[in-house]
Amino acid sequence: MKLLKERILTDGKCFEGGILKVDNFINHQMDPKLMYAMAEELATRFAGSGANKILTVEASGIAPAIMVGYIMGLPVVFAKKKVPSTMEGVLTAEVHSFTKNRNYTMCVSSDYLHSEDRILFVDDFLAYGNAAVGVVELVAKGGAQIVGMGFLVEKAFQHGREVIEQMGIRVESLARIASLDGGVITLAE
Amino acid sequence: MKLLKERILTDGKCFEGGILKVDNFINHQMDPKLMYAMAEELATRFAGSGANKILTVEASGIAPAIMVGYIMGLPVVFAKKKVPSTMEGVLTAEVHSFTKNRNYTMCVSSDYLHSEDRILFVDDFLAYGNAAVGVVELVAKGGAQIVGMGFLVEKAFQHGREVIEQMGIRVESLARIASLDGGVITLAE
Repeated sequence: MKLLKERILTDGKCFEGGILKVDNFINHQMDPKLMYAMAEELATRFAGSGANKILTVEASGIAPAIMVGYIMGLPVVFAKKKVPSTMEGVLTAEVHSFTKNRNYTMCVSSDYLHSEDRILFVDDFLAYGNAAVGVVELVAKGGAQIVGMGFLVEKAFQHGREVIEQMGIRVESLARIASLDGGVITLAE
Repeated sequence: MKLLKERILTDGKCFEGGILKVDNFINHQMDPKLMYAMAEELATRFAGSGANKILTVEASGIAPAIMVGYIMGLPVVFAKKKVPSTMEGVLTAEVHSFTKNRNYTMCVSSDYLHSEDRILFVDDFLAYGNAAVGVVELVAKGGAQIVGMGFLVEKAFQHGREVIEQMGIRVESLARIASLDGGVITLAE
């Protein structure tokens, strides 16, 4: 997606250890107009997917997910990264975040994942695919199916796509980063 | 706002200790069409506020905030509840959450709060107003001004409105809960 790629090259910053910061337009300060345009693009790509529900993970997945849900006319569920004390009937999966170097428990109430659900997972970043693997586990525990996964930015050099595609799940991303070597952002195409 | 009030009475559930659960349409599973309608209402109420930026707090404030930002054509910043290791120049405030019975550090990068900023704060719930007080502290540290605070649901019996209004800040909410006594949801008007 041209608009996003240009914005990444203009406003993105990279740091040691393959970290791409896009926190002035995606995951701290957000540009709602760009967010809507990205959501439209994901909605178009998954128009024929048969999805009946959008799933994301707090916090930075929520903005793209709610807009995809709005455009596609589907409910949006966000998985939490801490099990709330007031929640009963919780589905959980353990996830390791390489970016933050810690584990967390991803959870969704069993009220919001059913056997008839066909889930489109939406998130801001695809890196190693660990969160995506957690989502696959959660969705399986709820007896639901995943029809696809859509990401704003894919760090292609961390190979999360391969992990997901090996499970037979379709992956779409709007900008693929080939490398962040030498502090330079290189796009994949 | 009639649509929200009806939905709260239909789908909201209350629990011991003044807890209102609206997690099937606001803060776990979200109804994007309702979310957009609520954002439109907040945008209308604050149309003349002079806001140039929307501020919210992760996670459940993000969905209403991104939509208010989209409708008003303003950038949206979400404060984080944990200081990221990769963030420099962080503005912080300590907040006690009564709902979760724990303290957290609310933070925003100083890159996204400037002296010329006129902030509209948007969040899903107003209870005791503790998060709002933290936001006032953060915004003051950034040298910015608050032009108003808009909430989807206000638990009027927890008096957060008084706390905020005493600081001279305008408060709007779309549904006011007068009481949750005896497991019954009673709206304020």
